[in-house]
Amino acid sequence: MPNYQANVSVRLRPSVLDPAGEATRAAAKRLGVDGIKKLRIGKSVSLELVAPNESEARKRVELLADRLLANPVIEDWTMELKPAP
Amino acid sequence: MPNYQANVSVRLRPSVLDPAGEATRAAAKRLGVDGIKKLRIGKSVSLELVAPNESEARKRVELLADRLLANPVIEDWTMELKPAP
Repeated sequence: MPNYQANVSVRLRPSVLDPAGEATRAAAKRLGVDGIKKLRIGKSVSLELVAPNESEARKRVELLADRLLANPVIEDWTMELKPAP
Repeated sequence: MPNYQANVSVRLRPSVLDPAGEATRAAAKRLGVDGIKKLRIGKSVSLELVAPNESEARKRVELLADRLLANPVIEDWTMELKPAP
């Protein structure tokens, strides 16, 4: 069965506060890096999987993202999938 | 000054164990999703910044990534930068 690589990017919804990001932004200022207007921290999950075909692989990763990787109440996710080299 | 959008993706180095990723992989199996061979969890930091030009913006984000966002002992990072629409 072919191999696929996927990357799921999980981000906090825009309406949700991100205290860790805000603290990092403040730390950037103390470090002397100016001009940072926004900074938000999300998760990036990289996967390798085997599946019979690309659409089945996509379905599996979507199920994982919905049920396991992201909390749909406060998070959005996007995915990229490609055949493994 | 122009606005830029940056995204810094921070990943554990391949030699570093990822217990959270391993636990998620086990949970995927229990959820009935088969074929996941690897699963690693990293950070994805999205930034908006103002800078006089693109190379200066890049320099600032690189400094942040090196000093603040990633731990170079155990993590690698990559960045993307583009002018904000």
